[in-house]
Amino acid sequence: MSRVHNFNAGPASLPLSALELARDELVDFEGTGMSILEHSHRGKDYDRVHNEAIGLVRELMGVPSDYHVLFLQGGASQQFAVVPMNLLPPGKSADYVLTGGWSEKAYAEAQLVGRARVAATTGIEENGSTLYRRIPKQGELQLDPEAAYVHMTSNNTLFGTQWHWLPETKAPLVADMSSDIMWKPVDVSKFALIYAGAQKNIGPSGLVLLIARPDVVANGRRDIPKIFRYATHAKENSLYNTPPTFSIYLVRNVLRWVKEHGGLAGMEKRNRDKGALLYGAIDEKPDFFRAPVEKESRSFMNVVFRLPSVELEERFVAEAKKAGLVGLKGHRSTGGIRASTYNAVGLESVQALVSFMREFARKA
Amino acid sequence: MSRVHNFNAGPASLPLSALELARDELVDFEGTGMSILEHSHRGKDYDRVHNEAIGLVRELMGVPSDYHVLFLQGGASQQFAVVPMNLLPPGKSADYVLTGGWSEKAYAEAQLVGRARVAATTGIEENGSTLYRRIPKQGELQLDPEAAYVHMTSNNTLFGTQWHWLPETKAPLVADMSSDIMWKPVDVSKFALIYAGAQKNIGPSGLVLLIARPDVVANGRRDIPKIFRYATHAKENSLYNTPPTFSIYLVRNVLRWVKEHGGLAGMEKRNRDKGALLYGAIDEKPDFFRAPVEKESRSFMNVVFRLPSVELEERFVAEAKKAGLVGLKGHRSTGGIRASTYNAVGLESVQALVSFMREFARKA
Repeated sequence: MSRVHNFNAGPASLPLSALELARDELVDFEGTGMSILEHSHRGKDYDRVHNEAIGLVRELMGVPSDYHVLFLQGGASQQFAVVPMNLLPPGKSADYVLTGGWSEKAYAEAQLVGRARVAATTGIEENGSTLYRRIPKQGELQLDPEAAYVHMTSNNTLFGTQWHWLPETKAPLVADMSSDIMWKPVDVSKFALIYAGAQKNIGPSGLVLLIARPDVVANGRRDIPKIFRYATHAKENSLYNTPPTFSIYLVRNVLRWVKEHGGLAGMEKRNRDKGALLYGAIDEKPDFFRAPVEKESRSFMNVVFRLPSVELEERFVAEAKKAGLVGLKGHRSTGGIRASTYNAVGLESVQALVSFMREFARKA
Repeated sequence: MSRVHNFNAGPASLPLSALELARDELVDFEGTGMSILEHSHRGKDYDRVHNEAIGLVRELMGVPSDYHVLFLQGGASQQFAVVPMNLLPPGKSADYVLTGGWSEKAYAEAQLVGRARVAATTGIEENGSTLYRRIPKQGELQLDPEAAYVHMTSNNTLFGTQWHWLPETKAPLVADMSSDIMWKPVDVSKFALIYAGAQKNIGPSGLVLLIARPDVVANGRRDIPKIFRYATHAKENSLYNTPPTFSIYLVRNVLRWVKEHGGLAGMEKRNRDKGALLYGAIDEKPDFFRAPVEKESRSFMNVVFRLPSVELEERFVAEAKKAGLVGLKGHRSTGGIRASTYNAVGLESVQALVSFMREFARKA
């Protein structure tokens, strides 16, 4: 079996050790005579897995002890609606900072739930679509001090931008961290609420990690269906209804790997090394590899670049695939090349990509 | 490796062949050099799996070709809210038939979304809680002919009751089939909407199968967040946002097994054989095994019974576990014994249980 270099944008590469453990015990979990998939979510065997996963989130991220750590379903896209359903009461307004397609979607859903406004956008119109090439600066944020919350998207998979500073806000700060959760240590106490689809940095698709300050949960709206209230899930330790048990199990396996590899400090070192190598290769040949994102807004998770022509880009993707480097096609809305280099992607994969890029540029 | 006899109520037993295939290709899916968990949901490899799963649902259930078959997240508990969000406009009311704890929950959520009424209930008050021992008859249904829909729960995991006839309704019929979907052939065209959490009969937890008549989707409310509209997911073939890809893959594996075992006619034979054997053992010793459910309402999926004392019940569960028969403890709200005998549970498991029961009764 030979594993490819996987640069998929999500679902994405997972640590081999996490997959191998899942494989080895898939039919018989820890000698219980059944798969973890067949265990009751109310049984003690699954309960141990569930709480180990939650404990690892707390430990690795340094989550303040009074914060809630929840596992939810429906993807980050569902949280685009559920965040305002919980946090945006009638008469209040929420601030949205637009830095890409995902924050646009979050803003659109919030407008269907209540009142929302744009506190800042770095979008520029080009050929009929909105492009984003940078993260705004504090001075650009036109914040409503009375806002119910301020929503930001910490990393933008489509455009390859990432926040490298934290905005100062009077209102509670809410962050969609789907595509860079745990890429490095972060001060969780600065946030009122963090949510992240698991399928980029910490596990499979079908699971959302949500971390919330206790007041956010306690003061959430009560006039919404019970299933959507954060308080419901907080009270039941994410066991109000049947959780996606295998997804949580796999997150546990991934977080064990993160811990074994130096925790979030280890991830940051790993990710910065990969980023330096890859952006170095791009900047080495600026006439061939064009990086559209402003340098201080560059993402360490999704590295996007263009080649001199669409034909060359197509050839690049096709030849890379033959060389065992897959998932490099840019998002259908932006085109170009995108290498997603989440936590599980190894330095050796980026080295292979960089060698391929240099050779491709030389021959072109 | 020795597999136990798994009578869990859900997540529950899965066909061994479905698990073994998942195990064998967990690290490298069909020679692609990555796990199915790491494949993009937009790629052709996953797309094949996705459409095979949908195709198998259509084929096995004989879904009318214009009906939508969707894979959603959030569990059936989320559909308790999302069904009325889509189908219950202001000014209308929905009818609920209460036959157990799950229909009570569905009704409670609907009341938070709009107007809902009880069209029938078989609940009886006993020692401060509501017990259900039967399915109502047509004559007991006090239906509102103007109702937006009529909601029923086809099988009740807690109380072990199951509908063995289909109600006649003027309003569109909506069924929660979480715990008996595909247990036998059913005429899908009688229903406006069917939904089912996958984790009992067709796969792992974290996935909902939804089958809907085209008008139900087309006329759904548009003033709710986009992520909750059935039309959103129907338009995108359940790929509007990242689906739980591994769960869908596993459902595909399970449905391949169903097909290989005679489809739903094969499942019905299998389930009726198991039911006859197990209820036969109960009825053989009515003074020892007390079956609280009326005979014509007995479930073929969840067989519940009591023993002469709580002490004997505890001993039964403990000794059964030692004998490799697990998951037999009744639901915490009802007590007693519950054997869940979903599609994947083999006749040999029920035979082992029946032998154990006879021996236990003899010694007691």
